Amino acid sequence: MTHAPTGSANVLTRHGTGPVGKIPDSLRDVEHAVTSLRDFYAWLTSYRDTEQSKVRRIPFTELKAWRFEGSTGNLVHDSGRFFSVQGLRVRDAPGSVPSWEQPVISQPEVGVLGILVKEFNGIPHCLMQAKMEPGNHNGVQLSPTVQATRSNYTRVHGGRPVPYLDYFRNASGHRVLADVLQSEQGSWFHRKRNRNIVVETTEDVELLDGFYWLSAGQLHALLAVDDLVNMDARTVMSCLPLTDPALPNLRPPDGDPRSLYPVDVDTIRTSLTRSLDPAHGALHSPGSLRNWFTGARADFEGEATLVGLGSIRGWHRTEDRISHESGLFFDVMAVDVETGSREIGGWTQPMIEARGQGVTAFLVQRIDGVLHVLVRAKHEPGFMDAVELAPTVQCTPENYTVLPAEAAPPFLDEVLSAPAEAIRFDTVLSEEGGRFFHTRSRHVIVEISPERELQEPDDFRWLTAHQLSGLVQHSNYLNIQARSLLACLHSLLCQTRGE
Amino acid sequence: MTHAPTGSANVLTRHGTGPVGKIPDSLRDVEHAVTSLRDFYAWLTSYRDTEQSKVRRIPFTELKAWRFEGSTGNLVHDSGRFFSVQGLRVRDAPGSVPSWEQPVISQPEVGVLGILVKEFNGIPHCLMQAKMEPGNHNGVQLSPTVQATRSNYTRVHGGRPVPYLDYFRNASGHRVLADVLQSEQGSWFHRKRNRNIVVETTEDVELLDGFYWLSAGQLHALLAVDDLVNMDARTVMSCLPLTDPALPNLRPPDGDPRSLYPVDVDTIRTSLTRSLDPAHGALHSPGSLRNWFTGARADFEGEATLVGLGSIRGWHRTEDRISHESGLFFDVMAVDVETGSREIGGWTQPMIEARGQGVTAFLVQRIDGVLHVLVRAKHEPGFMDAVELAPTVQCTPENYTVLPAEAAPPFLDEVLSAPAEAIRFDTVLSEEGGRFFHTRSRHVIVEISPERELQEPDDFRWLTAHQLSGLVQHSNYLNIQARSLLACLHSLLCQTRGE
Repeated sequence: MTHAPTGSANVLTRHGTGPVGKIPDSLRDVEHAVTSLRDFYAWLTSYRDTEQSKVRRIPFTELKAWRFEGSTGNLVHDSGRFFSVQGLRVRDAPGSVPSWEQPVISQPEVGVLGILVKEFNGIPHCLMQAKMEPGNHNGVQLSPTVQATRSNYTRVHGGRPVPYLDYFRNASGHRVLADVLQSEQGSWFHRKRNRNIVVETTEDVELLDGFYWLSAGQLHALLAVDDLVNMDARTVMSCLPLTDPALPNLRPPDGDPRSLYPVDVDTIRTSLTRSLDPAHGALHSPGSLRNWFTGARADFEGEATLVGLGSIRGWHRTEDRISHESGLFFDVMAVDVETGSREIGGWTQPMIEARGQGVTAFLVQRIDGVLHVLVRAKHEPGFMDAVELAPTVQCTPENYTVLPAEAAPPFLDEVLSAPAEAIRFDTVLSEEGGRFFHTRSRHVIVEISPERELQEPDDFRWLTAHQLSGLVQHSNYLNIQARSLLACLHSLLCQTRGE
Repeated sequence: MTHAPTGSANVLTRHGTGPVGKIPDSLRDVEHAVTSLRDFYAWLTSYRDTEQSKVRRIPFTELKAWRFEGSTGNLVHDSGRFFSVQGLRVRDAPGSVPSWEQPVISQPEVGVLGILVKEFNGIPHCLMQAKMEPGNHNGVQLSPTVQATRSNYTRVHGGRPVPYLDYFRNASGHRVLADVLQSEQGSWFHRKRNRNIVVETTEDVELLDGFYWLSAGQLHALLAVDDLVNMDARTVMSCLPLTDPALPNLRPPDGDPRSLYPVDVDTIRTSLTRSLDPAHGALHSPGSLRNWFTGARADFEGEATLVGLGSIRGWHRTEDRISHESGLFFDVMAVDVETGSREIGGWTQPMIEARGQGVTAFLVQRIDGVLHVLVRAKHEPGFMDAVELAPTVQCTPENYTVLPAEAAPPFLDEVLSAPAEAIRFDTVLSEEGGRFFHTRSRHVIVEISPERELQEPDDFRWLTAHQLSGLVQHSNYLNIQARSLLACLHSLLCQTRGE
């Protein structure tokens, strides 16, 4: 790339000159879109009706091209690609159970999760794909434009080319709204990361079968539907720029940000809008937050080491699953997939199946009229960097039944017993259906009274939405559950005209 | 921590209300400080005169409590703490030499590098320590307030407590200006990181023997002195906030940032000042830079694996060193240290001794009057995340004498042959003297003509100073050489009143 010499004055890019602000505008006016949600549902139903895939559990011996490796007992693919299931030995972790062993997915490849954005009638629309994944209990869910492992897009298995991949593999000539490597589930994956990328184009885009343009507002509104927007879509959505800290033009002309929002209009939407704008301030300064988070990382002294799957203690293999002796946590199992609609006709693969339904929740509170979110600095053994920011509550409640009551996660009771009028979001959403079988989490946002003085435990802090949005542009800050909930939080801006 | 309920209106912190801007002010007026540089030099000379340490090379057999471990050949400490020298096997790295093996320092502990800041007469001052390190060819250099491994401050070796440590281990009640885990040399360390932290206090601070308050401007001005400000001080200095992208009040009232700086005043200082202010814009948008950098990381497919030091190919151990068969790169060697001034009286340890003097250089250019810095996305095998941003040139020129000419790093010739009038900074500075013996790099900043159209190679990009300052607040972006040069770049703001 070259730039013109200094005589030509306009080679530099300044923030705030682009169409930033149109994404939150779309959330605030969900009905402004090229097609209605009614049209979308009709399309989705018709797509689901033509989808012919069948998924069935199989014993490990029916896996084709997968085997338990002799020396380690690891579950590996004959090609050496895709992924493997290995063992993980954890020592000196913080919390009530410092040491354990478990199966873990090792997948060193960085996959691509990309959403293509294009304006129609001045409204940003996202190109979404109706995609069957074997782990989805309802078959088809809504995925990003591109959701591909490196093995997919380098076509190790000889499948068809990945549609729209070039927008993300070579984004020059387009506008990149987000591009960041993000962690996956640190309890189930060893150091797995995906590239989360959002590219805006002004080109004509051919609409292929199985794809649909939804406005940013419509897409967020659909988060309220159980098991529709898949995990990969949610994590990319969380990286969409809903705020830009460099943007002075978000501020009102008189310099007092409060004048934008009359004090007597104090809904969750207005307090969230304030929270997305740095001019409204935050309970904790950036320096104080960096000090807290860096301290949590620097003090971590545990270790997590890959070991042979055959050697881990407390886990037993039967003909069709590897389970913990307690009957808790998750199983490693296998499926056979028959389909006419995927790049290749059918396949078998191992998967992870959680034993219970998860709960992932944000407590939120209006502090001085600005919505704050309580996040936790949490260790998960599969993280590349030991500690990331997690939701207020992230657990599978059943897993704590065998432990003493004081081992239960902070705020779990508060979330489970929250009164209906305090619940701002409550939807059951699926984990990624390419690796996780019928594994789902209830996503909840609970608002506590502005009058309440809540003592932050050492590993918890109140952050604003703009602080979370700033961090999610960088790797290794927000874990996948926090990102999924951040997209749900943003959906609280959604408004239809009748409201 | 609790916050007051919403009735009390002022619990939120807003950016731009603190004393930001005083650090660049200090650089622009170096003479405004509590003592003069002449006083500082007198103090330093007197300190050096009383410093009694003796360092001598020893054969490995004279190491006390260090040994070559039988099974691996690794050089380890009997306690299992401190650090070890192991082998590293690198495969499929980008560049002209994709595979090699080498010794590497493994030190899983996160150390603390902290600078304490306090205002005197309204000017921020940094508490610096005159510190002997065995690798320093000149004995004493200027180090941060605290420079301590975890083994130091948990007192594994039974030494004295680390002075001022509490400001950094528990910063509550003080103002945290920076706090971030930063990488160390990725060619010599395996995934080593240190906590870089700057804390401002308003308390009275007792001045202990061996410590000195220098204004931020004085400290930066001293970067121009060969081998004075040590590597640990330079990396912490690079994290000092010289710009705050959230600060609208840095902008002029009429909204045109150019009005702050008349066009006819176009020195390196004014172009650097513009470069520190996001309002002046940048050649590449944040999205475009994220796309470039994330792409470099996502495409990386190499691997670096720890192996036994005794098993690496191409390296030979004699009684007093481990060297590469080519005579290039570096040696592992050992020293005996006698001192009366350190926490313990004397010790022996292994060290790394580079064979040649390094060159680390930024090419800079004024683009539309805004200074830009050419950085490189570079793989080093010891990085936690494969690729970081490095200087335009970072190499030891002698290492390329055995390779074909086309293997020489881009822009190396340009830096080595730069005319005197293009050189804005040129100082020889030392690597960290606790691990590296007489190992030094020439730090150079070369300005190229604004008229020149320089084609950016794929792995290079022009960044502004505010873009670099934004990235250095997060882990794993700028490598240690880029951070060291960033501090040198900031020192170009330094001005004495006579100028």
